[in-house]
This record gives sequence, C-alpha cells and structure tokens, in this order.
Amino acid sequence: MDVYEKSLKKHYEWAGKYEIKLRAPLESLDDLALCYTPGVSRACTEIANDKSKSFELTRRHNTVAVVTDGTAVLGLGDIGPEAAMPVMEGKCALFKAFADIDAVPLCIDTKDPDEIVRIVAAVSKSYGGINLEDISAPRCFDIERRLKALCDIPVFHDDQHGTAIVAGAALTNALRVVGKKIADVRIVINGAGSAGIAIAKFFLALGAGDVVCVDKCGVLVGGEEYNNPAHAEISKITNKTKIRGTLADAMRCADVFLGVSAPRIVSKDMIKSMAEAPVVFPLANPVPEITRDEALEAGAAVVGTGASNQPNQINNVLIFPGIFRGALDARARDITDGMKLAAAKALASLVSDSELRADYILPNPLDKRVAETVAAAVAAAAK
Amino acid sequence: MDVYEKSLKKHYEWAGKYEIKLRAPLESLDDLALCYTPGVSRACTEIANDKSKSFELTRRHNTVAVVTDGTAVLGLGDIGPEAAMPVMEGKCALFKAFADIDAVPLCIDTKDPDEIVRIVAAVSKSYGGINLEDISAPRCFDIERRLKALCDIPVFHDDQHGTAIVAGAALTNALRVVGKKIADVRIVINGAGSAGIAIAKFFLALGAGDVVCVDKCGVLVGGEEYNNPAHAEISKITNKTKIRGTLADAMRCADVFLGVSAPRIVSKDMIKSMAEAPVVFPLANPVPEITRDEALEAGAAVVGTGASNQPNQINNVLIFPGIFRGALDARARDITDGMKLAAAKALASLVSDSELRADYILPNPLDKRVAETVAAAVAAAAK
Repeated sequence: MDVYEKSLKKHYEWAGKYEIKLRAPLESLDDLALCYTPGVSRACTEIANDKSKSFELTRRHNTVAVVTDGTAVLGLGDIGPEAAMPVMEGKCALFKAFADIDAVPLCIDTKDPDEIVRIVAAVSKSYGGINLEDISAPRCFDIERRLKALCDIPVFHDDQHGTAIVAGAALTNALRVVGKKIADVRIVINGAGSAGIAIAKFFLALGAGDVVCVDKCGVLVGGEEYNNPAHAEISKITNKTKIRGTLADAMRCADVFLGVSAPRIVSKDMIKSMAEAPVVFPLANPVPEITRDEALEAGAAVVGTGASNQPNQINNVLIFPGIFRGALDARARDITDGMKLAAAKALASLVSDSELRADYILPNPLDKRVAETVAAAVAAAAK
Repeated sequence: MDVYEKSLKKHYEWAGKYEIKLRAPLESLDDLALCYTPGVSRACTEIANDKSKSFELTRRHNTVAVVTDGTAVLGLGDIGPEAAMPVMEGKCALFKAFADIDAVPLCIDTKDPDEIVRIVAAVSKSYGGINLEDISAPRCFDIERRLKALCDIPVFHDDQHGTAIVAGAALTNALRVVGKKIADVRIVINGAGSAGIAIAKFFLALGAGDVVCVDKCGVLVGGEEYNNPAHAEISKITNKTKIRGTLADAMRCADVFLGVSAPRIVSKDMIKSMAEAPVVFPLANPVPEITRDEALEAGAAVVGTGASNQPNQINNVLIFPGIFRGALDARARDITDGMKLAAAKALASLVSDSELRADYILPNPLDKRVAETVAAAVAAAAK
C-alpha cells in the first residue's frame, strides 16, 4: 500500500485528526455553575468592559483559525470546502503537535474575495490568529492585504510567507555552504503564483541583489504589460538586468534556481548552464522540476526539495508553528516583515557551522527546538 | 467569594475552557506524511468525488459550531462577540462533557441578520451541526428559519427549542404529579421573546389545549395588531378563549404558569388565584418571577426554576447534548418537530412512576443516562 492509500485508510480509522479536550472540570453542579451559568456571566461582563480580556478569560489567546475557500488545495486545485477539510485538519494537528496551538478549520463555501474578507473579518473575534491556506492566486494577495488591515489579530497566508521564510532560511544556509553572498548572486524563481511572488519579495527583503521571476509565458520584465497585477508589481522590483526570454535563458549563469511550478520542466543541461556551484531548489510537489539525483549529476552544489524522504526538505512545518506561537505569545496584532526576517534567521541559525553540509542546510521538521527558537525570535521582533 | 467572583478567578486559571487534542499521531516523518502531505491528498480526492465522505474522513461528523452575534447573552443583553465568548466556550465544554461532541465557538461581529445567515451558511461545510445561541428576538426566528432552509446540516436555536423541550418534559411530569391531562389545562406563558414563543408552540405540539401568552403590554389576543411579527403569529394560534388584560387576569384559574420574563413580577396572590394544584415554573434567571418558597407558600403543587441549587431545575443542559448527539449519530439534515417531541418524551420518561414526586420531575443534569437516552430517541425519530 503506498502512502496515499495508507493515509486514506488511516483517515477512516481516525475519523477526524483532532478532538476537543476539556480544561475546565464538569463533574459536579458546582462545576457547572462556575464553567457555565450563572457564574460565567462575570467573565462576560469583565470582557464587555475591556475587550482585550477575551485573550485572558477564553482560549482566544491560543486559538488560530485555518481558513480556506478550497480553491488551491495542494496540487489538486479547486476542490471546494468539504474536500479541503482533511488538509485543514492536518494543519490544525501540526499546530498542536509542534506549537501547542489550538487551531480549528474554517472552510468557506464562496470564491468571492469580498465575501471571504467580510466573513473572516466578522468571525475574527473568536480567534487569536488567522492562517490563510490554499487560496488561489492572485485572489489570495488581495484577500490577505485587506484582512490584515481589517483584523486586530495576525493574518498570515502560509502558502506565501511560510514557504518564503523556509526558502529564505534554506537559501541563507545554502549560500553559507557555497561561500557566496546573497547580495552578489542571481536567483531565478520559476512559477509566479502566490508562493513564487512571496518568495521573490522575501529574498529581496533578505538582501538579494538580483532576483528574476519566470512564469509560464517566460521571464517577467519591468516595463512590460501584465494582466495579473501581481506580475506587474513584481516585474518592477526584480530582474534588474532586464533579462528576456525563457526559463532556460534566465537560468544561464544564475547562481540559484528555485521552482514552485510544474513537474520535470528543468533539464540537466539547464543546471549545467548555471554559474559555478549552483543552488537548486525544485519545490514542485509531489513531482519536482528536476529530481534531486539529476540535479546533483548535473553539478548542483546544494539541492533542496519538498520531499520528506530526501535531505534539505523545504517544509512549511518548520516555520508556521513557531511564527504563530511567537505572534500569540507577544499578542502581536500583525505579523510584520521584521518578524518574518527574524523567523528565517532563527531557523537558519539552528544549523551550526560544524553541522552545516550540502545535505544538511535545514533542521529536521521533528526537531522540537525549531518552533521554540522561531517563536522566541518572532516574539522578540514583535516587541 | 460568591459564585460570580469564584467563576471569574477560575476563568483566569483555566485560560480557556477547552483545547485541541490530537487523534492522529505526529511523532515521525511517516506520521507527517500520512496526516498531512503528501498522503492527505488522497482523503481530499475521496471527498471531492463524494462530498458526504467529509463526514467520515474528517471530524465533521462530530463537530458543532456554537454560533452567536452576542446580542442576547444570558441576562446581560447585547454585549458583543468578544464578551459572549465565555458563554460559548462553556457551552462547548458542556457538549464535550455530556455528549462527547467537539463544539467550537463562532462569535460573529455583525448584527445584520442577512449577513449572519450568509456567514453561517458559508462556513457550514466545516461542521456537522449549528447551535445558535444568545441571538436576540425577533431576529433569531428569521435567522434560524433561513439557515434551516440553506444548510444541509441540523440548525438548532437552543434558547428557543432547548428550553422548550426541557419545559415540555417538566410540564409532562408535573401534570403526572397533579393528575391533569395536557389537553385540559390552561397554561399561561409570561414573556414572549424567543424562549416564550418557542415554548408556547412546543406545548401546543405536545397537545396543550389552551396556551395564553403574555408580554410586557399584556395578554396577546388573536385579531389584534402587533408590530412584532412573532407576536402576531403566536396570537393567532393561542388564547382560544380570547382572554384580555394583564398577567394577573391571565393567571386567574390557570393550571400552569411559566415565566421567561422578569424578576419578581408574580405575587403570592396571583398564585392563589390559579386553579387547584397549580404548576409554577418561574424561569427568569438569576432572579425568578417568584421564588420557589413563595410559590409553595401560596399553594403551588409543583415548582420548577432555573436555579441549580433547587429541585426541578429546568436546565437546557438536559437536552441540547442529547439532541445533537442523536442528530449527528443519525446524520440528520435537520432537527424536526418529531425529533424534538421524541426528545421531550425521552427526558420525561427518565423519571419513573416510583421516583416521580413534586420535587423530582426531571433527572439530575449530571445523570449520564440523560444524553444517551435523549440521543437514542432523537436518532430513532430522525429515521
């Protein structure tokens, strides 16, 4: 039985990947009177007088909603709110396992961005944070931007920023391995959806000197007209030497390739055309742009993929639990660029100079230090 | 320290009355691959092909959203979504403790009924049932009616129907005590808000021959004009002898008084004016329409109140856990009148002839048989 069929069987057995556990006892009539009526009304009036007390007197301080409209679930595309549930539940389970955060799925049965924004803003008083998940681009950019403005709790689209932060830590450490400076390298990002755009922006924030974005239609170049507003925006701040053409053109003499695009679209020859000691992150999942073995055969110095059974897995689970743990601990109202940069640096720092190798640039996702270290850095940056 | 201050202290200690508990293990990379990517995608495609599988492959089958807009919280009124949270969390804790249901609060920051309906319908695919709570009348009637039509999962406004069902069981057993038939008695209900209206309708469904509703402006009489559409509707199907006047007028020679109104508005003389062996349910909380002791002194044969430290507590916790347990077990798409009547009869039947006394007409809320027995009756009625 492969991992997919085994997972399906387990899903039937689990009948849900989490449940509710009581923190307040309910054994006696006295317990009832304290936990519920009449006693509970005192906690209500306390919050009515000072709304911030909802973070002390309820579970709000530790609760995150995992919100999706089911339009871009894994590689499956637009499968709707019901079918998105197993992923959202899985994410909630990871939140609990890695950061002791109580997360609940909120799958929304509309694709109208205005309505999604209204709904999430209207229910945000029940939660301490909002994790947006698997919402298709370019809608996700606008939805996140508007929700960040409307909500007084952190809103974070993990597919964009979680991926970007882990990729940023991976890039930082891969460049330590090959001895290059981020300001000096040319980085090609293939796939200009939500993750690709966010990664490009984050790499620039990390100090990257030259980032080139490539989409299905070719290299994005400033000055060209694009229907997709996200492409128009990113083209203006990337590709400083105005490279034109195809992915192969962009990769020639590039130092770093990162793909969040489609299976098997990078050849060995394209890797061979890159600069000396190239860093290659083919992240398409489950089938990457080029396999790890092929990339290494073609001369890649460092390879990271999305696969859990290979070294250097670039996995969001390394970052989102710690990001939210830190934001909740600091009771941050937003997750700022400063907090994201601090998270990437903290994650990268977990691999010491003596541990650092071409096939060990990121800690193991099961390493319990990861969420703690990221959370502490994020909370400190929030102050 | 009174129950209110003690409850507040406990709320600070609990820092939330429930949390998330994992059902799927997350100890190894293999676990990650089964619970989350890549394995989870198989459960997603299974549901995409057959949406009903979301009730098997996720926790949806056991999950209820406790939804409020915070407009009618306990006796506190419109205190908003944040301040409503402790009550909603408490309700979620009761769901788990009494029926092993995984309930989560959903406090909505709008008072617009159209928007509340849209929001709840749009998120309903994440849940197996919707418990509406503490939404002010008459808005709650329309919100519930429209949501029942829009959602393919049970929608139940506990303040209306939960209270009505427990009151129905209490009435059934009180009439057993005094040896009267429900078809023959006159019942006065004071307070024509959400609970009062629902109780009146439910008593009629139970076979009550003569129900008279009274509101602040006096007895509701068919043929009169009322601004409140719920008052107009209920006036047409109650008060068959067209009694007019005040609460005191209605209570004269009545067999049953039930109050969901205001503190201390019923006098001993009003009780004395009732028919022989009157049944008195003053449910205003925390201060009832007349105290139990005063009612007994004035000749009441059976008294039930909302107070947990008195006999015959008419407490919703006797019914909502079992109602939802039964509806979820049967995977009912609605909670029908037949299911509600079955619930009331099942609850009443838990007091045997040999146990039945004027001060024991309802089982103890902590009695573990209650939810099981109600659930079985509700599930059977759902088939």
